[in-house]
Amino acid sequence: MRPEEIRRHNLSLLLRHIHQHGELTRAELTAATGLNRSTIGALVSDLVALGLVSEYVPSGRDRAGRPSHLVAPRPDGPYVLAVDVAVERIVTATVGLGGVVHERRQVAIDGAARRPEAVIDQIVGDAEWLGRRRPGGGAPVGVGVSIPGTVRRRDGFVDHAPNLNWRAVPFADSLSARFGGDVNVQIGNDADLGALAEHQRGAATGYDHLVYLNGSVGVGAGIISEGTQLHGSGGYAGEIGHMTINPDGPPCHCGSTGCIETYIGEHALLRAAGVTEGHGARAVDTVFIEAAAGDPVARQAVCTVAMWLGRSLANLVNCFNPQAIVVGGSLAEVVRLERRTVETELDRRAMSASRSGVKLLLPGLGQESALIGAAELAFQELLDAPDSLPVSLAN
Amino acid sequence: MRPEEIRRHNLSLLLRHIHQHGELTRAELTAATGLNRSTIGALVSDLVALGLVSEYVPSGRDRAGRPSHLVAPRPDGPYVLAVDVAVERIVTATVGLGGVVHERRQVAIDGAARRPEAVIDQIVGDAEWLGRRRPGGGAPVGVGVSIPGTVRRRDGFVDHAPNLNWRAVPFADSLSARFGGDVNVQIGNDADLGALAEHQRGAATGYDHLVYLNGSVGVGAGIISEGTQLHGSGGYAGEIGHMTINPDGPPCHCGSTGCIETYIGEHALLRAAGVTEGHGARAVDTVFIEAAAGDPVARQAVCTVAMWLGRSLANLVNCFNPQAIVVGGSLAEVVRLERRTVETELDRRAMSASRSGVKLLLPGLGQESALIGAAELAFQELLDAPDSLPVSLAN
Repeated sequence: MRPEEIRRHNLSLLLRHIHQHGELTRAELTAATGLNRSTIGALVSDLVALGLVSEYVPSGRDRAGRPSHLVAPRPDGPYVLAVDVAVERIVTATVGLGGVVHERRQVAIDGAARRPEAVIDQIVGDAEWLGRRRPGGGAPVGVGVSIPGTVRRRDGFVDHAPNLNWRAVPFADSLSARFGGDVNVQIGNDADLGALAEHQRGAATGYDHLVYLNGSVGVGAGIISEGTQLHGSGGYAGEIGHMTINPDGPPCHCGSTGCIETYIGEHALLRAAGVTEGHGARAVDTVFIEAAAGDPVARQAVCTVAMWLGRSLANLVNCFNPQAIVVGGSLAEVVRLERRTVETELDRRAMSASRSGVKLLLPGLGQESALIGAAELAFQELLDAPDSLPVSLAN
Repeated sequence: MRPEEIRRHNLSLLLRHIHQHGELTRAELTAATGLNRSTIGALVSDLVALGLVSEYVPSGRDRAGRPSHLVAPRPDGPYVLAVDVAVERIVTATVGLGGVVHERRQVAIDGAARRPEAVIDQIVGDAEWLGRRRPGGGAPVGVGVSIPGTVRRRDGFVDHAPNLNWRAVPFADSLSARFGGDVNVQIGNDADLGALAEHQRGAATGYDHLVYLNGSVGVGAGIISEGTQLHGSGGYAGEIGHMTINPDGPPCHCGSTGCIETYIGEHALLRAAGVTEGHGARAVDTVFIEAAAGDPVARQAVCTVAMWLGRSLANLVNCFNPQAIVVGGSLAEVVRLERRTVETELDRRAMSASRSGVKLLLPGLGQESALIGAAELAFQELLDAPDSLPVSLAN
């Protein structure tokens, strides 16, 4: 490698570390990266000059010896626009280095508001609103969007988002055009981004073999193996909601029968609970509240979903041999209420060698996993090459 | 990187290329590696001096201009011992660089001959027999063994090989001790090694997203994603034979019900064909021969297995989004006889975005995938560091 490549590599290493862990001392950075003290000093100076981090000597602390400089992401530094397009709502946020959410906006969507053009209008409007509220102004260094559907990795083309009723939508291109074409727009699948966020700063930090199962109306998984996200050849890996778990099961909107989604998706829960009127998050929450209060029909419905969830997770354990499974979306509540049922099916159906090493976790980021994952996606370009930012954006 | 690290890196790059492709011209090596001509010249000289390759100028060829030197693996160079422990046979072979099988030995096993100690005795005896037949003599630079079971990657501990009736066998340690402890012994799962071999030199070269499904008595998959094998945290990934495909299905020896193996393993085929006496490869072959000859019961049995095979493959397509699936073992014959049934289930159950890009292939290495994969595993250490070989082994 040439000297400027080595410098960029080291800047990236350091900035990723600060981005993941937040405020750190120079001594901690030296220990974590294996670089020597003078190199760390020079690199931190570079990151300060680039407007990415700030450095200060803590005062008033009760420390022995010479205090180590503290390095932290600069609060008024570059930011990204993160968007979580879910079936019933769009959440938009400005997020800074360190994964700090600065401002957040949420709108409910339904019917025509779910159309791609309407969603893009909403995002562009929210971006302007959020931009106006930033004291320093300035454009985001990247835009990351989470979509509940199959997203082609290469160009952010949405092949199918069934619960939004989207097919073949060139979403990244359309959104990018609306931003004038000069902003880095990245699109990801909601479960993939949830996995990324939970691995980076959620419940599964430190687990380099991880399955994040996201279940609300639709069901999908994001998979991390040896610390790297599994994409598959087009970006469609992890469509486990449409794995057959019972060929004689109910018909699925995908054209198959007995898909996992027909057993553990929210429609299955509502059907099992006998809910024929009303739908959406509120109806689902009602079932959970009734189950927690001891209503026998609601409890049985949650228990049935929990049993099928356990079966589905056992399949993923046999397939991926992860160290941890994080269950997100409304399925997290199923684990909270009926963990024993889930674990019993895991015990029964997962191979012992893989079963013994796996932890069943709830998300560390609550309902925000996909949003934070979208921010991570938008930050990748900057994190890969911290010295590539135009000065106008950095300051 | 320090100069000696760069040299080792480049030697490794070059040797891997020659190992995969066999005889090549210097010009081809220059084009493939991106290194300049003088560097290639120096590295080839190093590999010649290490006793790994030979170089010669072709004579008598009808070529225009100055002929390019040809570089090829040295036939009397280092070799590995590759072993495929299957349920009914042990195949042992000496394999040279370039994946060339020099000598091959096969013995049938049954009953007590399947015990770990007996298998180890057999391997050690075969190694001696094969060693005596090498003109130059010398010890192998590595030993690779394929096992039909769950293998812990870290230390070659076999957690469970149900069809050999093994549980908790420290196989790599025991075999290594019998070789005097100074030979590099590597153990792998048969499907993982089949995937490795088919990717390296079989039907799936050029496909960096690949599922190899191995089905005989047991069923397992080896998965390659972005060119890298998926191991999972312990090495147990790809145990897809024990993924539930119908919870109300037949009991499986693993303790669960309705596992994929209970629908597409050889016992399921024999049961469907009404074979109550006799078992093993010969009985399975008889069903295939009868089905090909038009026997209605045998045809129906193969068709039923093909249907469940298609369902299982659809699940893997949704899960991994591969470019190619290679079906090996006796399931290859099911694909040959009933490909349309398999493809129909794939069409019906795999998500269109993933389905449209996937090819269904038969193994390029026939029944030898796991054996060649075991050789690949044994060669890894030498390929990583071609300059680390003791001179006594290289010559």
